[in-house]
Amino acid sequence: MRNYMKPIRYGMVGGGRGGFIGHVHRTAASLDGHFVLVAGALSSNPSRADASAEELGIEPSRSYSTFEEMAEVESKRSDGIDAVVIVTPNHLHAAPAKTFLKAGMHVICDKPLTATLDEAKELHALAKNSDRVFALTHNYSGYPMIRQAREMVRCGEMGAIRLVQVEYPQGWLAEPLEETGDKKASWRTDPTRSGPGGCVADIGTHAYHLMRFVSELAVKDISAELTSFVPKRRVDDNVSVRLRFANGARGGLWASQVAIGHENGLRIRVYGETAALEWIQADPNYLWLSPIGEPRRLLTRAGAGAWPVSNRVCRVAAGHPEGYQEAFANIYSEVAVAIRAKEAGTPLDSRVSYPGIDDGLEGMQFIYACIESSSNDGKWVQLVN
Amino acid sequence: MRNYMKPIRYGMVGGGRGGFIGHVHRTAASLDGHFVLVAGALSSNPSRADASAEELGIEPSRSYSTFEEMAEVESKRSDGIDAVVIVTPNHLHAAPAKTFLKAGMHVICDKPLTATLDEAKELHALAKNSDRVFALTHNYSGYPMIRQAREMVRCGEMGAIRLVQVEYPQGWLAEPLEETGDKKASWRTDPTRSGPGGCVADIGTHAYHLMRFVSELAVKDISAELTSFVPKRRVDDNVSVRLRFANGARGGLWASQVAIGHENGLRIRVYGETAALEWIQADPNYLWLSPIGEPRRLLTRAGAGAWPVSNRVCRVAAGHPEGYQEAFANIYSEVAVAIRAKEAGTPLDSRVSYPGIDDGLEGMQFIYACIESSSNDGKWVQLVN
Amino acid sequence: MRNYMKPIRYGMVGGGRGGFIGHVHRTAASLDGHFVLVAGALSSNPSRADASAEELGIEPSRSYSTFEEMAEVESKRSDGIDAVVIVTPNHLHAAPAKTFLKAGMHVICDKPLTATLDEAKELHALAKNSDRVFALTHNYSGYPMIRQAREMVRCGEMGAIRLVQVEYPQGWLAEPLEETGDKKASWRTDPTRSGPGGCVADIGTHAYHLMRFVSELAVKDISAELTSFVPKRRVDDNVSVRLRFANGARGGLWASQVAIGHENGLRIRVYGETAALEWIQADPNYLWLSPIGEPRRLLTRAGAGAWPVSNRVCRVAAGHPEGYQEAFANIYSEVAVAIRAKEAGTPLDSRVSYPGIDDGLEGMQFIYACIESSSNDGKWVQLVN
Amino acid sequence: MRNYMKPIRYGMVGGGRGGFIGHVHRTAASLDGHFVLVAGALSSNPSRADASAEELGIEPSRSYSTFEEMAEVESKRSDGIDAVVIVTPNHLHAAPAKTFLKAGMHVICDKPLTATLDEAKELHALAKNSDRVFALTHNYSGYPMIRQAREMVRCGEMGAIRLVQVEYPQGWLAEPLEETGDKKASWRTDPTRSGPGGCVADIGTHAYHLMRFVSELAVKDISAELTSFVPKRRVDDNVSVRLRFANGARGGLWASQVAIGHENGLRIRVYGETAALEWIQADPNYLWLSPIGEPRRLLTRAGAGAWPVSNRVCRVAAGHPEGYQEAFANIYSEVAVAIRAKEAGTPLDSRVSYPGIDDGLEGMQFIYACIESSSNDGKWVQLVN
Repeated sequence: MRNYMKPIRYGMVGGGRGGFIGHVHRTAASLDGHFVLVAGALSSNPSRADASAEELGIEPSRSYSTFEEMAEVESKRSDGIDAVVIVTPNHLHAAPAKTFLKAGMHVICDKPLTATLDEAKELHALAKNSDRVFALTHNYSGYPMIRQAREMVRCGEMGAIRLVQVEYPQGWLAEPLEETGDKKASWRTDPTRSGPGGCVADIGTHAYHLMRFVSELAVKDISAELTSFVPKRRVDDNVSVRLRFANGARGGLWASQVAIGHENGLRIRVYGETAALEWIQADPNYLWLSPIGEPRRLLTRAGAGAWPVSNRVCRVAAGHPEGYQEAFANIYSEVAVAIRAKEAGTPLDSRVSYPGIDDGLEGMQFIYACIESSSNDGKWVQLVN
Repeated sequence: MRNYMKPIRYGMVGGGRGGFIGHVHRTAASLDGHFVLVAGALSSNPSRADASAEELGIEPSRSYSTFEEMAEVESKRSDGIDAVVIVTPNHLHAAPAKTFLKAGMHVICDKPLTATLDEAKELHALAKNSDRVFALTHNYSGYPMIRQAREMVRCGEMGAIRLVQVEYPQGWLAEPLEETGDKKASWRTDPTRSGPGGCVADIGTHAYHLMRFVSELAVKDISAELTSFVPKRRVDDNVSVRLRFANGARGGLWASQVAIGHENGLRIRVYGETAALEWIQADPNYLWLSPIGEPRRLLTRAGAGAWPVSNRVCRVAAGHPEGYQEAFANIYSEVAVAIRAKEAGTPLDSRVSYPGIDDGLEGMQFIYACIESSSNDGKWVQLVN
Repeated sequence: MRNYMKPIRYGMVGGGRGGFIGHVHRTAASLDGHFVLVAGALSSNPSRADASAEELGIEPSRSYSTFEEMAEVESKRSDGIDAVVIVTPNHLHAAPAKTFLKAGMHVICDKPLTATLDEAKELHALAKNSDRVFALTHNYSGYPMIRQAREMVRCGEMGAIRLVQVEYPQGWLAEPLEETGDKKASWRTDPTRSGPGGCVADIGTHAYHLMRFVSELAVKDISAELTSFVPKRRVDDNVSVRLRFANGARGGLWASQVAIGHENGLRIRVYGETAALEWIQADPNYLWLSPIGEPRRLLTRAGAGAWPVSNRVCRVAAGHPEGYQEAFANIYSEVAVAIRAKEAGTPLDSRVSYPGIDDGLEGMQFIYACIESSSNDGKWVQLVN
Repeated sequence: MRNYMKPIRYGMVGGGRGGFIGHVHRTAASLDGHFVLVAGALSSNPSRADASAEELGIEPSRSYSTFEEMAEVESKRSDGIDAVVIVTPNHLHAAPAKTFLKAGMHVICDKPLTATLDEAKELHALAKNSDRVFALTHNYSGYPMIRQAREMVRCGEMGAIRLVQVEYPQGWLAEPLEETGDKKASWRTDPTRSGPGGCVADIGTHAYHLMRFVSELAVKDISAELTSFVPKRRVDDNVSVRLRFANGARGGLWASQVAIGHENGLRIRVYGETAALEWIQADPNYLWLSPIGEPRRLLTRAGAGAWPVSNRVCRVAAGHPEGYQEAFANIYSEVAVAIRAKEAGTPLDSRVSYPGIDDGLEGMQFIYACIESSSNDGKWVQLVN
């Protein structure tokens, strides 16, 4: 995965001091040497923006007060940024994404795509007509054993898929953390910033994407129940979803932010006609394979039973655990390959895979379908209607 | 748990040679010395019945061709049976249960209660008016750590319960086993013998009972989707259920018999306002407790952290694993205490607990509500309507 | 495993009220219907002996004050006991074992064989010259997956064995429990009752036997270090042993009774030239198989991958966990088959396996070799010298 | 952990194309932005050295044919390297380490310190007299939960330590891989390059260091048995060690490279008078704590129960697993802090911890003591004699 070419210059929108996800993105971008941070509109607070930029080694002249200014100035520089990374709250995704696309820059955006479906549709249309790379950081699809799981499904190792069960329990919002002023909790539970979905948007879309990524089954209809368990909470904090796939398979998805005892319990299980798979994010170097009529097998990252498709996105030998940050970096490295191919006008290596604008729109459709279904007592709603 | 009194005499209906569950019941009945088998109508095939009886040490004169004959003859003997154990397929539960109740005998019946809801209602009415003990072997409620889980919920260790997630995946029916002549598969997938529910009746009711046993929350409404994945199968083999409890809590239940890789994967997770619990049947000597804001704790059967309520139903020291058969025996031992109290006219020890006729009726209501909901695209159905 | 023949009558020496292991033996003896308890010398305290006998349904006339009396009287009865079970502290094994052998009864004795090596040699000589069955309850060899492990070694699935690692940590003696009057702790830490070995005798011999049972490798030399961590303790409470097998393989054995956090952590790992095995007593329904160059496989009791040799000693289906008591019962059932074959003068089914007098003597040689080695700074000592 | 100061310039000795550990070091050095690679003597093959340098973005003029040249030239440059990283086989550690120390550069060296004890002593003497930082990458001590384990021991949470059990099984040398030309296997099994120890040096020293790091107990005497299981292998591939600590505690250490089924199974268990700890490298985000008389607790990295000492060396939130590379980077980041303090002449933050020259010498003493003991049938050998 190591890059030995000139790194891609990027700027960042959001991600100033004290945030969590900005640092994750920066580390992911730099881990394999593919990207270098040279500009930023890191905060809506100018002095905080500048201080953050200084810490990060960004030249003062390239620390901008607004993303619009960054787009304008950088697009005129001969050494201007090639790409932008957007790590703001949901309601601040669409505007910069559109602006930078229009300015001819590649866009890497945190999930979900936008706060509202209308924004998403507009952005989707723009991105589809653009020749720029648009990536959405559904980072869990970057784990090596998830790559292997998808390939095993693809190659028919499971037979036809019957059932996919995904769950994503967390416990950190079991109490009204938003009332304490906690920044992460506050915007995630504020519909004006997160959009109408709470848990369903924040982590439900991750679970949904993972289900789609691994199974590659098209979703037809959705039935959902969204609940807010914590008093006064303005968005859902627990989601139960049934899915009907186009081929007749079924899906079950449960996401929760009030499930005490779970830190980040993303888990996927895929049941086919001849085998089943299980993967747990907290222990990501393992993949359970259950062929029908045989003992379960514990596949390990880079180990016996690992396929080239997963080894391709590994850095260290079996038994030396890789984690969240490495999986996140895999998305960045895939995007880098895509950007370079785009810039060079060469065809993209068919093995490269990263979540993009279509995934982003579908994630928003998922949120809205869930909300519509839940508002109608769980009636079945077409994903795209 | 060891009994030192005269054992209770019982007869068995069904359970002849070659069956699985008859042997489980007999071992459970005898493990603590509470019961002794003295009569049987072990098979509808008379020669098989007699051969089975001989093997089991039943006197030839007490091996009966029909349960009716057994009820009649045994009720006249001074040393006649005190109780009957019914281990026939579902459609053959109601008739013997009624007959033996009317003959003044205690009844221990395998689950689900009957094949149809009408039968269940009739049997329920009869049992409620009887002074005999009626027990239904939802055996998983006999596990020590399940007893502890319920007690922890009861004592408020979890705070108010918000969410209960139960799953019960099995893989043994992933192929059309019923077409091979497999006996267990055949009657379970034949609606004239199993009743209208397949997976939902066979293991869904176990999962439902466990959820109710541990949480003690009343169920109001149910939304379900039943699926038959295996071609030509006449009953459901996969069930997804949402539950709304009377207090506003929510439940999720998934049961499947096409989930390859799972042998008998019953699992329950209970999320309250201040703590969560997790228990897995395949590893039954453990109970995970997650208090909010603290590390998870692994409670062990008879170990540090085990409560009297669970120690009461243990036989061996911590670290010496108990299993399925012991939990099953706990149900029998509780029933024995109840029978003795009934016979003696003394009050029942308040710690004694076993599933009874109300659980049986509710299980049938659960099956029917699931089918009605599923037939109506998952609409919410009142459990009792 | 179910017995359908007339059960074998047995008496018990020791095992009165309040003890743990007596109850375990009685349950094991009766679980499959092979044995029935009809006599006892249950306690050196006559009134306690009688009260215990009454509880257990033993006729008063067959509750004896001494084992000598029991041997004498029972040997004269036409319905006298066929076998005796000895569950006294170690120093009270040899005398009753010899007495009952001489009286023509089969003997089932708890481990270790005796308190001293001299006693063991004498008993061994007597038993070898007797035509009675002599069994020693190294019960862990009764677990189905242990049977499978041995068979896999035997069949060459591992290639030649290079290394066997066994550990048996417990934590219950981490404090000076013997000073509190705890009965189990008191005799186990009193050399006049336990013999010169503490931990090495009590659980070290179990670990040693398991290593020998699974690998079937002859032990040549032993180097050991015995430690007493708890102040004033009179015997070892921690044991580290190296073993050299006759074929050049190596073994490592660690047993401890001060290892806090372990309830009964017996574990064995076998490494061959082409595969490895791992089994953990606390989770006994699993067996890990690691073929070289392939993913690990999780074999389950009675499940896919289980062999006839293990299925033969199972009672319930896969996914329905069996435990300690069932494994203990397997030893009793094997002994019952052996007793019946002996009585009938028929050859013994070659699949039958139970620990016997040779294992008992070797266990004592192991204890003494460990002590000798440890007293000489870990010098290598021949197991038999 | 993020560095916002000017990175430290370093050069690398060894680590050219195709190697594993060079890449690991470079990623570790750059992960937090503390170090930047500007020079290299990457291979003894000049064209391979230059090609590797080019790939890594090193200026051609700073790609050197020999480490001596690199030391000489770089020490004269105003922008010369501040530190060197040595990732050659063991026999090529001592010479460059001494050279760069003498040239006034900080040294980061892979383990074990050298190939021979004499080299180690000489290097130790030099380093102790130097004012440069000398670090040895016993990287497992960089894991956050290992930091926490040490702190819990330090704070008396365990009471006095009685016993430390460490194991480090691997399976990759179960076959004579060195005969296939495999590079990693070849030098590790060649005494002229690895030194007299095989497994004991390669991974035994890691296990030893971890034991020392967590327990902080001084080792007095060692008894060891080294074995070579694979025919024709010239060094040991399996090691069993007993340790006596100065305070009377005991240790057990087992390392193996023929233990099929283990990828990199480093594990440590610490037993004190009042609690025990367990940590497994393959699942490094967990730490089991067993307080006496209480249920086991599963502490998680950055989670409930994590202490500042471990949180200090974390990058991402609980439930987002960190791995091997992050732990390795923690060592580099600690070293960076030490280098900066040294350069600035300021006192070193007392929380900073990294393995150094004393650990390196002690590791070599450990190897030699093991070999001496093993050559003398396991006799006890003083660590320093």
